[in-house]
Amino acid sequence: MTAAVRRARETEPADALPLGPPHRNATLTALNETHDPQLRSWVASANTQGNDFPIQNLPFGAFSRAHSQEAFRVGVAIGDQILDLTAAYASGAFNGSDDALAATQACCVPTLNALMDLGPSAWSALRLALSRALRLGAPEQALLAPCLLPQDQAEFAVPARIGDYTDFYTSVHHATNIGKLLRPDNPLLPNYKWMPIGYHGRSSSIGVSGQAVRRPISQVMRPGVSAPELAASARLDYELEVGVYLGRGNALGEPIALDQAEQHVFGLCLFNDWSARDVQGWEYQPLGPFLSKNFASTVSPWVITLEALAPYRQAWTRAEGDPQPLPYLDSTALRCQGAINIALEVYLQSAAMRDQGLPPHRVSHSNFRDAYWTVSQMVAHHTVGGCNLQSGDLLGSGTQSGAAADEAGSLMELSLGGKQPLSLPSGETRTFLEDGDTVVFRGHCQANGAARIGFGEVRGTVLPARSLTA
Amino acid sequence: MTAAVRRARETEPADALPLGPPHRNATLTALNETHDPQLRSWVASANTQGNDFPIQNLPFGAFSRAHSQEAFRVGVAIGDQILDLTAAYASGAFNGSDDALAATQACCVPTLNALMDLGPSAWSALRLALSRALRLGAPEQALLAPCLLPQDQAEFAVPARIGDYTDFYTSVHHATNIGKLLRPDNPLLPNYKWMPIGYHGRSSSIGVSGQAVRRPISQVMRPGVSAPELAASARLDYELEVGVYLGRGNALGEPIALDQAEQHVFGLCLFNDWSARDVQGWEYQPLGPFLSKNFASTVSPWVITLEALAPYRQAWTRAEGDPQPLPYLDSTALRCQGAINIALEVYLQSAAMRDQGLPPHRVSHSNFRDAYWTVSQMVAHHTVGGCNLQSGDLLGSGTQSGAAADEAGSLMELSLGGKQPLSLPSGETRTFLEDGDTVVFRGHCQANGAARIGFGEVRGTVLPARSLTA
Repeated sequence: MTAAVRRARETEPADALPLGPPHRNATLTALNETHDPQLRSWVASANTQGNDFPIQNLPFGAFSRAHSQEAFRVGVAIGDQILDLTAAYASGAFNGSDDALAATQACCVPTLNALMDLGPSAWSALRLALSRALRLGAPEQALLAPCLLPQDQAEFAVPARIGDYTDFYTSVHHATNIGKLLRPDNPLLPNYKWMPIGYHGRSSSIGVSGQAVRRPISQVMRPGVSAPELAASARLDYELEVGVYLGRGNALGEPIALDQAEQHVFGLCLFNDWSARDVQGWEYQPLGPFLSKNFASTVSPWVITLEALAPYRQAWTRAEGDPQPLPYLDSTALRCQGAINIALEVYLQSAAMRDQGLPPHRVSHSNFRDAYWTVSQMVAHHTVGGCNLQSGDLLGSGTQSGAAADEAGSLMELSLGGKQPLSLPSGETRTFLEDGDTVVFRGHCQANGAARIGFGEVRGTVLPARSLTA
Repeated sequence: MTAAVRRARETEPADALPLGPPHRNATLTALNETHDPQLRSWVASANTQGNDFPIQNLPFGAFSRAHSQEAFRVGVAIGDQILDLTAAYASGAFNGSDDALAATQACCVPTLNALMDLGPSAWSALRLALSRALRLGAPEQALLAPCLLPQDQAEFAVPARIGDYTDFYTSVHHATNIGKLLRPDNPLLPNYKWMPIGYHGRSSSIGVSGQAVRRPISQVMRPGVSAPELAASARLDYELEVGVYLGRGNALGEPIALDQAEQHVFGLCLFNDWSARDVQGWEYQPLGPFLSKNFASTVSPWVITLEALAPYRQAWTRAEGDPQPLPYLDSTALRCQGAINIALEVYLQSAAMRDQGLPPHRVSHSNFRDAYWTVSQMVAHHTVGGCNLQSGDLLGSGTQSGAAADEAGSLMELSLGGKQPLSLPSGETRTFLEDGDTVVFRGHCQANGAARIGFGEVRGTVLPARSLTA
């Protein structure tokens, strides 16, 4: 990566960069003029240090004006603003490029699915057109300035129609941590290092950041008793995950090869896979988690495209002594740049902290580059048996935990199964989530010679359980 | 049930039966004039003994004229014909009932979801109108006769847009049989008798009867070796299941109580949950089946409404010594009529049998009334933690096996894990499915004093695996 990034940094001003026309096999991992860290936007807030949405990012989401009856529609985050692509399409700003115009037209709807269906060359053409039109001095400024809406005046929707959601388990640290709690003598099962373990999740209960999550009531088996009871979960937890949106799918029976996999990926988001550990412990054998997971999952509003993530790609390696992947899960490209450097953080804010004016408190951090399995391996494995993926499908990375104790992506791990409480700045402690707790995930990417881009955040607050007697 | 059925049998001719107007809390389990076994249709084939689709059945499906470019649309099976509801709506035959007309209008689309969304009173009103209009001597005959298409001139689609698919595990005989093969010392896990165990499945790969199922290639771990390999499944199996389509859903966080559960169920179908046992054995710990199930599942074209199944309801009981269900999974109505008597059969036809002109051979049979958990318990448990169901969602019952050896709903069970081959009339034997095998499930309902109704069939044929070197 270093050489590639250096190339971008040392180039002439962006407009002078050679860039071929978008093509069907657009390499979403190659750097191009849209990644130039010198670029500045005429949207002033996009140029602020530390802001998540500089002109090098350009993530997509679905929004409408808050408290309005407007339909949701696709927009692009730029600084603290949203570029309304329906308005931008009508403005004529993109009339100069047929590809970009067609891609913008596919955004005049409530979800990203139509854009996703167009495939990587269209995504690339739109990104390039947006980058050029939003640059400082771009002649499109006059047409596009009226198409901006401040993000704090918007509400968001789940950005895609998610047909199927699959959750993976790609952090070996998480799998080992959880395994130690459940099976001390056999923490990591023998299949783990051979395949990206995954299972099907529930699509219908996926909501967008800001979701209020009601504490689930379900069957639990308390220690020392002989019969289960129906009770509110006492071990409610979050899971720090990266979400992966499929772009174009595949036909049933037609696998996606590893080296083609990223052509089918539209982008990434932050993802909280809320989990009820006591429910999970009682129900999950032999067919996997069910009610312990399906009461809610939350995505961040913005989808960071794979192309925007190109500067943060890293080599992917296998630890000494671990099995090398089978050929269908291995390639040179994977070894060179299969991993993605995304710094992830978890913040917790209790109701008392809100009352005291205390900000959310960081309880852990990890990095997606430490995942044992990559995005392309998830896609290749998911489809190798013929399963068909569709545009808008969501893959969860599984909880992203690092090797260190403070890099655990769930309270189950941080509190060692509830045995070691965490301290909050309010003087409170936590083993699992309490009613009123707000959980915030943040993520960002940094690399030498590249701009810093961010994922925004995914946020959710725990509501008390329904009355058991109602 | 006996008394209720006797009442239906002893009634006056159907038109004289008292029947109130459809109402919001229509009881889908109560008998009414549409169940009268004396009813005959002006569609002559519907009156043939042993035919699956007499006028007492009236199942819904999505069809189009075979080899045409026509859009799929909703129809009703009657004898060997399909009543095209788009054509029927236009014919004016239902103009006499606002409720039935609105329900028919909701059928002028490619899937059943719009009808499902209307709820039980609309379903009931449409069933009543169809029953009256298709009866021998009905004045609507002249308008509706041109709206018929022979079933053998139609092709079918998956009848609903299935958002989420959940597979349950409701047969204690199947769970015990499989458990004995996997965990001889601990076949039935402690949670089994306390809750309907379920897990999320893959929606995108659900197809309709006639599906050609390509043998999946995936990771398997052969006995006696130290590393897995990518290989075509050598233990491909079917699973004999009943599918349950949700009618109206529930809001996220709002459970459906047991006694309301059937108000949310539109109807039932036959369902083959194809399974690759060698893939399953290697991958399923700790998060459940994944590639072993998601390569294909097949539904029958016709959805038998819950109302059509009213005459075949039976008492639901717990065996002596088994735990009684927790209150949220128990009720008087459940005890009186929670079970449904549906006779299920599995037939197998190899390529050689087809060549020799031998018909499909029955390899096992079971009955849905023997399920340990009922439809309403599946719905109540699925939602108790707040998970939202949506119209068109599919619940699989899990493999339906009976207590006897020839009542096993999968080859895994029938062949005792591959150790005891089955004999076919062609002189061949089977432990698991071979390329070219066709699997057919059939189902029907019979009860004293009620008409016999059938489910039609669900059929699928195994294609060879893709080349591993391609």
